Parts: sequence; C-alpha cells; structure tokens
Amino acid sequence: MKKLINDPARYVDEALEGLCLAYPGYRKSGRVIARVAGPATGMVGVVTGGGFGHLPVFAGYVAGGMLGAAAVGEVFAGPPVDVCGQAIRAADGGAGVVCVLGNYGGDRMSFAQACEEFEDEGGSTATVIVADDVASATTAERTKRRGVAGMVFAFKTAGAAADAGASLDEVARIARHTADRTRSIGVALSPCLIPGATAPGFSVAEGGIELGMGIHGEPGIERRSLPSADEVARAMVERLLADRGSQGGRVALLLNSLGATPLEELLILYRATHALLNQAHVEIGLRYVGHYATSMEMAGCSISLVELDPEIERLLKQPTDCPFWPR
Amino acid sequence: MKKLINDPARYVDEALEGLCLAYPGYRKSGRVIARVAGPATGMVGVVTGGGFGHLPVFAGYVAGGMLGAAAVGEVFAGPPVDVCGQAIRAADGGAGVVCVLGNYGGDRMSFAQACEEFEDEGGSTATVIVADDVASATTAERTKRRGVAGMVFAFKTAGAAADAGASLDEVARIARHTADRTRSIGVALSPCLIPGATAPGFSVAEGGIELGMGIHGEPGIERRSLPSADEVARAMVERLLADRGSQGGRVALLLNSLGATPLEELLILYRATHALLNQAHVEIGLRYVGHYATSMEMAGCSISLVELDPEIERLLKQPTDCPFWPR
Repeated sequence: MKKLINDPARYVDEALEGLCLAYPGYRKSGRVIARVAGPATGMVGVVTGGGFGHLPVFAGYVAGGMLGAAAVGEVFAGPPVDVCGQAIRAADGGAGVVCVLGNYGGDRMSFAQACEEFEDEGGSTATVIVADDVASATTAERTKRRGVAGMVFAFKTAGAAADAGASLDEVARIARHTADRTRSIGVALSPCLIPGATAPGFSVAEGGIELGMGIHGEPGIERRSLPSADEVARAMVERLLADRGSQGGRVALLLNSLGATPLEELLILYRATHALLNQAHVEIGLRYVGHYATSMEMAGCSISLVELDPEIERLLKQPTDCPFWPR
Repeated sequence: MKKLINDPARYVDEALEGLCLAYPGYRKSGRVIARVAGPATGMVGVVTGGGFGHLPVFAGYVAGGMLGAAAVGEVFAGPPVDVCGQAIRAADGGAGVVCVLGNYGGDRMSFAQACEEFEDEGGSTATVIVADDVASATTAERTKRRGVAGMVFAFKTAGAAADAGASLDEVARIARHTADRTRSIGVALSPCLIPGATAPGFSVAEGGIELGMGIHGEPGIERRSLPSADEVARAMVERLLADRGSQGGRVALLLNSLGATPLEELLILYRATHALLNQAHVEIGLRYVGHYATSMEMAGCSISLVELDPEIERLLKQPTDCPFWPR
C-alpha cells in the first residue's frame, strides 16, 4: 500500500487543485468545487458534499447538466457547516438549491444547519437523502441505509432537470424519485489507507471478500473465501432482486470499481450480471461501467440499479459536460 | 492480490464478452474485437493488437474515429499470426490497412507475417511501430524503445485520419509522425498478478518505486524508497524533457494510471506535472488523465507527451465514439 502523495495534510487540497488544472470546468474556492461558469441566474442549483477519497464522487460531478457545487471534507469525514454553506451559495442562481446527500449523519447535520442559515438569509432549499445500500439495513428500515454509488443517478437526473429550468420543488421531486428507485450493493476485496496512516483502519476477510461492506469499511453482511466472479455477481444481484421484490422491468445498471479493481474484472462481472438480470427478465436500458464512486485504492466493486421510467431515462441521457460521465 | 475472475483459462474471452455486452460498438469474433458497424467501403482501416491485460489498450480503442479492429493475445502475450490476420481482414474496407503496433518483437513478427499473407491475397498494408518509452533505450537507440501508453495518441490520429477518408500512405504517415513525436515514462509501485498464477512474475522495490519499469514488469532504470508525488513527477518530467532536448513548445499530456493508482493520486501528480512543464515553458494544449493503458491491478502511473502541431491537435480533437476517449 504505497501512495503517490506529498504531505498528507495537503492531500485533499492538492488533489482538488489538480482537478481544476486538469479539467477546464472546475473552480476551487477553499474546500468548495463549483462550476467555472457559476450558477445560471434564475436556475435551481444542485449541491452535494461529503468526505474526500471517493472521486469522482463528489466533486467530479460538478458540471453543466449535473451538480452546481460540492462541499468537500477531509478524507472519509464530512465537510463542516461553513463549507456546506459556501457550496450552497456557490450554486445559488436565485431560484433555490437542492442538496442531494448520501445518508451519513455528519453530512446531513452539517448541510441541515447550512440550509437553515441560508434560508434565514432569504434563500430556498430542499434536501434529498440517498440511502441506496441494501446491505446496510433491511427493506423495512430502508431510510437507515447508507448512501453509496447509486447516488450518482440522483445527481444526474436532478442536475439535468435543474439545468433545463425546473423549479425547486420539481428538482427535489426528481432527485427523491430517482433516489427512491435506486438500490446498490458492494463487495470489498481489500481495504484502503488514509493518507498519513500507517495501516488501514479496517480489514477485509483474509484471502476473501466481504459482501455489503461500506465505502469507508463499514461492516458487511457476509464474509466468504474468495468466490468466483460469477458467484460474486450472483450474490449481489440476488440481494438486489430480493429487495426489489419483483422480476421484469427496465433498469439503468452501474457497475462501479471501488478503486483498484481493474476494467478486465469489471467486464467479467458485467458479463455475469447481464446474464443474471436477463434471467430475471430485467431489461438493462442503460449501463455504466467504470470508476464512479471509489474509496481510493480499495479493491472491490458495487452494483447499482435504478428503476427506469421515461422521465429518469430521459434525464440520465441528457448531455452533460462532466468528464466522468460517459457520452 | 485477489481477483474477481472465474476460470483463468476463460479470463480473456469473458472480459471481451463483457466488453461487447457493456458497450454497443464492439463485436467479438474469436480473439478479434472489431466495430459492430464493420469497415466502411473504400476507407482505410487502422488495426492494432497485443497481449491482454492492458485495457482500454488495445481492444477498447476499437471505435468510430479510432481503430477498426484489434487482435488480442493471452495475458501479456501477443496474438498469433492467424488472429492478426483476422483483425486485418475485419478492418479492411478495400483501401488497405495500417497496423499501429507497440514495439514488441512478438507482436511485430506476428503482424508482419499476417500482413504478408494479406498482401499475397491482394490486400495493401503499412505498419507503424510506436516506441515511446524513453526509459527503455537511449535517445540514440530510440527505435529499440518499448511501446507504452503513448501509443494511444497514434491510434487516435491515425483513426481520425482514416475515418476522414485519408489514403493508406497518408494514414501511415500520420501514425508515424505522431509516434515519432511521442515520449513516455512510467513508474511502478506494485506488481500485478497474471490470472492463475500464485505470485507476481516480477517485483517492485520493497516499500519503494521503480522508475521506468515496463508495463509487463520489464526492469526500470532506477529504484528509490518511496518519494513524494512531487519528486516522482519531477523525475519523470526531467527525463522526458531531457530526451526532448528543448524547452518550449506545445504538447498533449497523458497521465495514465497503470491500474490501482486512484484518481486522487493522479490529480496530485497532474498538479506537479503541470507546474514543471510550465516552468519549462511547455504549453499543455490537451490533457488526458485516467486509465488509458493499464497492467490490470498494477499500481503506478505513466506520463506521455506528444509534440502538438496543428495536424495532430486537430486529429486528437476529432470526435470519436470510443467510450474510453474523453469528449
């Protein structure tokens, strides 16, 4: 576990500076990444935020047709209230701001306070929580689930709607509708190292995998000695289908590397996932394979499904200039 | 080093099958990946090939505006003559085929024989060798250099020219011109594992890095205990500039993860690289940061520079529908 970094205390800022140098669309102000173009007057802004170490989540999705700004915390630690407030202001075009957040207590509390302060100044906000990780709580307690890679679907649909001129209520409705129809599950093969730490803060089953482990190493639901890719895909798809409770339908599928898992393995998993969904008569209308929500050099992957309807499908297909979203 | 795979003997085929299922533009026939659309009648085709385990290199760059077909070998082992011949035929639209190859003996020999057979049947071919790795031979012996990530620049310019209707000679000239102006250097942090093997076939300096290591673990030119990202960037950029022999100019920069190195670290390296090139008065006209030419889960990165002129810059900017090439 070797890292190409400089001073661990400068890790977040230097990576964000690199992001802004490497791509023309990002602007860094403190710990906020916003669009160079700024918010469009009279348009709703979509904002998110959270801990660092998950690129392209969160800051990478700031782009025309997606997010207006992102508040960035320390590695695996949510942003403080003032940074959340700065992100909200950076995305505010006068028509209000929708905060689309992963379901983590710290992120939610900081944004809640920042929203309150912004509203006290006369601004308008709405907040939508993405709780897509089916491994982290039962179907009955789904509001307790963590937010993982599936949150990018809500970033995309809400951002597309906002940039098309939708109202605050409408953007919030679309984000919530997307989040409500999204399910994810992950599998971890190896941990990652927080810069400056000498050992990982968590471990993965020796020589094996941990099904349902969270993107910060939160405990999963099952450990196994290393199964085949087909068995891993089956374990993940079965749990997603069970939570879904029905066969058939049409989904967008996101098969996401947590970091070190290479494209070759993702494609082998894609092949198995595709066959399993076909067997369940689930049509894959849109597919995304690659690095969408990572944990630095963690090995593993996640599968996210969003149930498509014409509205969600249209918004997912809308062009964006985000360099981390495919054509 | 855990892998999400099934039978190692099915690794290559299953990954290629996954590629074709996940993306609509690819067609697999044996070990050839070609465009679903097939070659356009009367147009030149651009073909490449080589060992597997470097995705998106080689097969991922088969796309409108880039390659017509790719011949795929086993992991880290070049394709046999018959597969090279099938790739050439799959890309032949009647106006000839340009083979753009990394400088590896096996790949070159197999393609040379396949080209000869194709010409015996009345076809036309030209072959261009990319030898961009400055660490693998001196400037005086640059034709002995290995081909690494910089080869994607020649794939892009040749493919864009071919799809715009350029002649065989013209596509070959552009590929050669691009290859001649391309320099790369890599740094390895950890090895990768060939599927089915129980241990890596090579090692990287314990706790350190190996500058100039090849993408199959070929020995580098310098081992160091783990330096900072800024020091790594400096070591790489200095060698590229020394080989270039001059300051100033305008380049396209490709900062490539070898696999496990995450985007956060690439961006920290980008920041340093950007500053170093600025200091040398080298303008970065185009920049590409991400996974372009990998070695499965190997940790490390490479920097490639191509000297831009108006022709190369125009061809790099031409749209392609390749899912692994940015907008």
